[in-house]
Amino acid sequence: MDDTERLIAIEDIRRLKARYFRCMDTKDWDGFRDVFAADAEMDMRAEAGEAGLVRGAPEIAAFVRGAVDTVVTAHHGHMPEIDVTSPTTATGVWAMEDVLRWPPGGPIADMHGWGHYHETYVKGDGGWRIQTLTLTRLRVDFGER
Amino acid sequence: MDDTERLIAIEDIRRLKARYFRCMDTKDWDGFRDVFAADAEMDMRAEAGEAGLVRGAPEIAAFVRGAVDTVVTAHHGHMPEIDVTSPTTATGVWAMEDVLRWPPGGPIADMHGWGHYHETYVKGDGGWRIQTLTLTRLRVDFGER
Amino acid sequence: MDDTERLIAIEDIRRLKARYFRCMDTKDWDGFRDVFAADAEMDMRAEAGEAGLVRGAPEIAAFVRGAVDTVVTAHHGHMPEIDVTSPTTATGVWAMEDVLRWPPGGPIADMHGWGHYHETYVKGDGGWRIQTLTLTRLRVDFGER
Repeated sequence: MDDTERLIAIEDIRRLKARYFRCMDTKDWDGFRDVFAADAEMDMRAEAGEAGLVRGAPEIAAFVRGAVDTVVTAHHGHMPEIDVTSPTTATGVWAMEDVLRWPPGGPIADMHGWGHYHETYVKGDGGWRIQTLTLTRLRVDFGER
Repeated sequence: MDDTERLIAIEDIRRLKARYFRCMDTKDWDGFRDVFAADAEMDMRAEAGEAGLVRGAPEIAAFVRGAVDTVVTAHHGHMPEIDVTSPTTATGVWAMEDVLRWPPGGPIADMHGWGHYHETYVKGDGGWRIQTLTLTRLRVDFGER
Repeated sequence: MDDTERLIAIEDIRRLKARYFRCMDTKDWDGFRDVFAADAEMDMRAEAGEAGLVRGAPEIAAFVRGAVDTVVTAHHGHMPEIDVTSPTTATGVWAMEDVLRWPPGGPIADMHGWGHYHETYVKGDGGWRIQTLTLTRLRVDFGER
């Protein structure tokens, strides 16, 4: 890859992750599923215990939808460090912050978290997709009702 | 446009939006007016009711100045999805978060919001400018005194 | 420099600042030192009084380590305005937000701040490094115990 091809790959991966955030926060679950490779793996065990390891784009979208479809969420990514390792593979680390507000009725009202996404990407016929995603946390605050 | 010209346009538009935020939060109202095309349209009706639809760069700058000149504000944009649709036109969606703290005396002390900017851009003799801006909200919290 | 070289420099500087944030928040102090030029100067006097003016990469790393090694921190940078002024020099302004939570025992529990970094960069054999860094604040909130 030449320099321009590498810069385009980085910009495409930034946009891919932008769709991940926008689709989650606007509850566009078809769009959300499409940011993942068919055999993607999401590791949210730091959040959700063993159930937080999920494989397959439809399964990941169903898991996240089940967790936050009725929750007002805002997830933001910052300061990516993206390495394009070949014309069809890349890695990335993103700082992140999320705020969640649950509907009335449960024990938890609010969550506010900070951490990092550690990701790999793959490029196929449909462009770049997330292949693996692991979330690590710096801090999580909960607000009880 | 070739690939490099498209990447330059995207970077220029990121910087344009950076000036929008920096000029608003540092109260540089001349600089703020200059990020808008002469006939720009800002749609903040989700925030401000019908008065929130404002046309013209000077009018937009006057409106925003009237709203926040005495307010301590921090507005941040995240995760842009910018499409360069021609050498002189582009569209963009940005995630955003803002915090506002009003001076003593009014009923509202603080606001904390999350949402998206939906924008179009135009390139003229002075470079890229914001042509239209619409703000949608995911969540807004108010802190009363 | 041609357009592509300028775009690469901007991306490299974005990644340099990403390492600054990631190394500080994950307490990787060797990595943190390496984002600074040997004779770098950090001006945190707006935060820390006269002691906040520090010269030299090891001294800067030691100062920041002393301030936040036991503090849970999340620092995020946003909306950079980077000017590449020569093949080996550049300037940048970044919006920023930081949250800090101190361990039990002291008078202050939490800090939440917003502001801007004003920076210069230099490129040497090891790539781009931060030459000077000055932090200005829009707002700082403290949470007492």
